[in-house]
Amino acid sequence: MDLNKYQKLIEELYFEKDSKRGLDKTFNWFVEEIGEFSRAIRKKDKKRIREEFADCLAWLLSVGSILGIDAEEAMTKYREGCPKCGSCPCECKE
Amino acid sequence: MDLNKYQKLIEELYFEKDSKRGLDKTFNWFVEEIGEFSRAIRKKDKKRIREEFADCLAWLLSVGSILGIDAEEAMTKYREGCPKCGSCPCECKE
Repeated sequence: MDLNKYQKLIEELYFEKDSKRGLDKTFNWFVEEIGEFSRAIRKKDKKRIREEFADCLAWLLSVGSILGIDAEEAMTKYREGCPKCGSCPCECKE
Repeated sequence: MDLNKYQKLIEELYFEKDSKRGLDKTFNWFVEEIGEFSRAIRKKDKKRIREEFADCLAWLLSVGSILGIDAEEAMTKYREGCPKCGSCPCECKE
């Protein structure tokens, strides 16, 4: 499914609640999800890892929506190779 | 563009480097990007906010790839309403 359709889906589900809660508080929830994702990785809980990955993605999209970001448009920066070195695969030095 | 196509695009760009670096170190980079995203929000730098949003999404997808997660498959949990209350929009209490 299109990235933008996912963003719209998450908006239908959560935009009203998330925008009422506000940007900073919603960002905190996003960070909380990242913590849960990290814990699932540490515990090597495969089902949980997948669930928490999806939650991180959903909250990131929702934070983006509050900020007025079009996810698809934002991701165009990756469509012409690495935004830093211009190559694909990336040849940047670490 | 499809979410999975974005995941494949990010894999073409970064999977070799990111998987060589390993899961934990790549997760740290992902968290670093979240910090940059947070800073851009604090500074109200619109262009930067969009850039950092995309970077967070790209790194999240790459962490997912290292973990063998299919982003599209993982996101199915949001396709039948809120995974907790089952409603759309979500009616969960905070």
